[in-house]
Amino acid sequence: MTITPRTLAGFNDLLPPESITKSKFINILKRNFELFGFVPLETPHLEYTEVLIGNAEGDVQKELFRFQDNGERDVCLRFDLTVPFARVLAQHGKQLGLPFKRYAIGNCFRGERPQKGRYREFTQCDFDFVGVESLFADAEIIMTIISSIKALNVGNFTVRYNNRKLMNALAEELGILDSSAEFLRIIDKLPKIGKDKVGEALITNLNFNDSQINRVFDFLNSSDYAALENLKPYKDKSELYKIAISELEEMESILFKAGVQDFAKLDLSICRGLGYYTGIVYETFLTENPEIGSIASGGRYDQLASNFTKDKLPGVGASIGLDRLLSIISSENLQREKSILLCNMGMEYIDTVFRLANELRSNNLICEVYPESAKLKKQFQYGDRRKFQFVAIYGENERSLKQITLKELSSGTEKTIPLDDLVGVIQSA
Amino acid sequence: MTITPRTLAGFNDLLPPESITKSKFINILKRNFELFGFVPLETPHLEYTEVLIGNAEGDVQKELFRFQDNGERDVCLRFDLTVPFARVLAQHGKQLGLPFKRYAIGNCFRGERPQKGRYREFTQCDFDFVGVESLFADAEIIMTIISSIKALNVGNFTVRYNNRKLMNALAEELGILDSSAEFLRIIDKLPKIGKDKVGEALITNLNFNDSQINRVFDFLNSSDYAALENLKPYKDKSELYKIAISELEEMESILFKAGVQDFAKLDLSICRGLGYYTGIVYETFLTENPEIGSIASGGRYDQLASNFTKDKLPGVGASIGLDRLLSIISSENLQREKSILLCNMGMEYIDTVFRLANELRSNNLICEVYPESAKLKKQFQYGDRRKFQFVAIYGENERSLKQITLKELSSGTEKTIPLDDLVGVIQSA
Repeated sequence: MTITPRTLAGFNDLLPPESITKSKFINILKRNFELFGFVPLETPHLEYTEVLIGNAEGDVQKELFRFQDNGERDVCLRFDLTVPFARVLAQHGKQLGLPFKRYAIGNCFRGERPQKGRYREFTQCDFDFVGVESLFADAEIIMTIISSIKALNVGNFTVRYNNRKLMNALAEELGILDSSAEFLRIIDKLPKIGKDKVGEALITNLNFNDSQINRVFDFLNSSDYAALENLKPYKDKSELYKIAISELEEMESILFKAGVQDFAKLDLSICRGLGYYTGIVYETFLTENPEIGSIASGGRYDQLASNFTKDKLPGVGASIGLDRLLSIISSENLQREKSILLCNMGMEYIDTVFRLANELRSNNLICEVYPESAKLKKQFQYGDRRKFQFVAIYGENERSLKQITLKELSSGTEKTIPLDDLVGVIQSA
Repeated sequence: MTITPRTLAGFNDLLPPESITKSKFINILKRNFELFGFVPLETPHLEYTEVLIGNAEGDVQKELFRFQDNGERDVCLRFDLTVPFARVLAQHGKQLGLPFKRYAIGNCFRGERPQKGRYREFTQCDFDFVGVESLFADAEIIMTIISSIKALNVGNFTVRYNNRKLMNALAEELGILDSSAEFLRIIDKLPKIGKDKVGEALITNLNFNDSQINRVFDFLNSSDYAALENLKPYKDKSELYKIAISELEEMESILFKAGVQDFAKLDLSICRGLGYYTGIVYETFLTENPEIGSIASGGRYDQLASNFTKDKLPGVGASIGLDRLLSIISSENLQREKSILLCNMGMEYIDTVFRLANELRSNNLICEVYPESAKLKKQFQYGDRRKFQFVAIYGENERSLKQITLKELSSGTEKTIPLDDLVGVIQSA
């Protein structure tokens, strides 16, 4: 009985050319992280459920791929790379030493309802700098984001940052410091659900009155986008304001000295929904594609590994939204790598053809030798379908003249060149 | 309550420097596959159990990570990359077109008893060339193996190849062609269990008599390692011998013309245990580390996707034993990449330091700026622990002279050089 070939809903194959594009993006990101001193760290796809979800209950549970293995262990596919990283730090922290910088690119699993751009298996791309309290570390994560997105060549973008402490200061001013987490969670939805609904939520969930609500929107508007100047007077209002604004001033100064001030802007509407952030937070938006949401987000946390250890473990980290970025890349538009198909004219010529193939590959040029001595038409069809840049023929005529016939498939132009010039001609094409 | 940080038995974290080494190996292999025209293809880690195991029963079942997901689907973590590839070909074959060359590097899961070098989660590294009957494709897979292992720089090695058809011809001569699969499975164990035990197994499982057993060992010995010449007389003995030996002759000729004859040798003891191989098969051994077994194995198959389609789908494929290769690499002995730690002497100097960092990274040099203006001793200790090649200081003295102080950590030598020379000095170090 033959079986119907199919994948699970929310799980996808990545065929070429998409897989080629993803592979290129990952190579660029990895190298960029490494140039900033981050090292790779790999954790298993499957872990003890207890390790991954800690004492958490509720919503997260429904989304888990959780089961009993053959040894009756309660196990779970990882749903992010942050919890496993926290576990590694608690387990191997002494060996790793602090400060420590790691990146991890790997697949995670969540049983969400599949929808456009949301998959049950997705690729997470994280980098973290732990064991540092200095704002230089925050700035470095932002600089790494900027350098990464630049390297991916996906258009203009801005990192928008804020300080959770500033929002806490506002919460204190409003007399709801104890409900600060809920307050931030609501404010975070502003770009998505708008002012009216945020106002409603503040009334319903936090019993805000009109004057409190007006204060919130005044605050957010008065200093919209990069208006640190407007915030300065608040430094005298409370200790929390003073700390928060001083940090933002230092941040601005470091980013300026790093020469990235044009790529990173203060934005008080950024506060990140996640509970564990405690300081500077940021999201990144493409100027031409704001609709895909933030493509690189992160922030500072005080205690990453609280489920595993009572030791303080401050740090800064961010994620690149690889799947989102890939969703806007048209694979057709990517500049293709230089590539050449060498036709197979039979055993008589194949030694020279193999030698040329070796030479091309040694020069980092993609090269295939057609796998049988078939009709030329068939070999050219293959070259077309695989989108080779060039197809070359080395047969009887070419041998007698020590030449090779080279056809550029896009233009159809054909020329015969000395055998020894092949690598150079392809390289400079 | 804090949770004990731990991993499941047979599942491992890969910490630096091991993860760095693995990442480097994977980069080298990916690039090499790409230079030969293979493209990446990614499939999900989780699939329908039916899709992965087909109609198979028995042993394989015990090793599966199989469970019911929240939608009550019978699902399973993939145990290899070959079955998912076969599924993709049956599902998307028209879109992909034939011939088609893909590589895949990804983690697979088997619930085997964990032991040294055997893990429940392991990295599989496969490349296949499907839709071709020509021996050029077989030769190309061997050439790709040779080029890959050379690029990894792990010492001398030999690809040892044979033809399953030759062993079938022998089985026919012995009158047991119908039991050829079992015969090959037993012969395959020769290097592991030795002549005596193979002889016993032939008697017990296939009712061999003494003359049959003698014939087997005569055959295997008479032409031990690269003695195609000795086989030629057999071409007259049967049609099967004739086909098998002609193929080996053609293979030898192609490999010679490709200039890789020193890396690939005929070895009649190679027959691969797996049932689906039908033609040329090969294993690869490191000259200095034969004990780790084959580091690259594969062969030709007639019908890869028989579970999913009745269409014939011939091809050739191989796997690189990445985990085995990594087991013999001492991370300490790997040549370290050029890297430099720039000390942080405070906000006054940091703009120049950031500019230098940018310049170094643009030149593909790994560079970190220490994340706070700490005591120099502390910054140097960090440089030592992270094994930077250089630590550099740019402070008051250096600024006034437009210089930078550079210390090589391995030798302890220190020198002061013009600021503009930094990149050049590191590059040529």
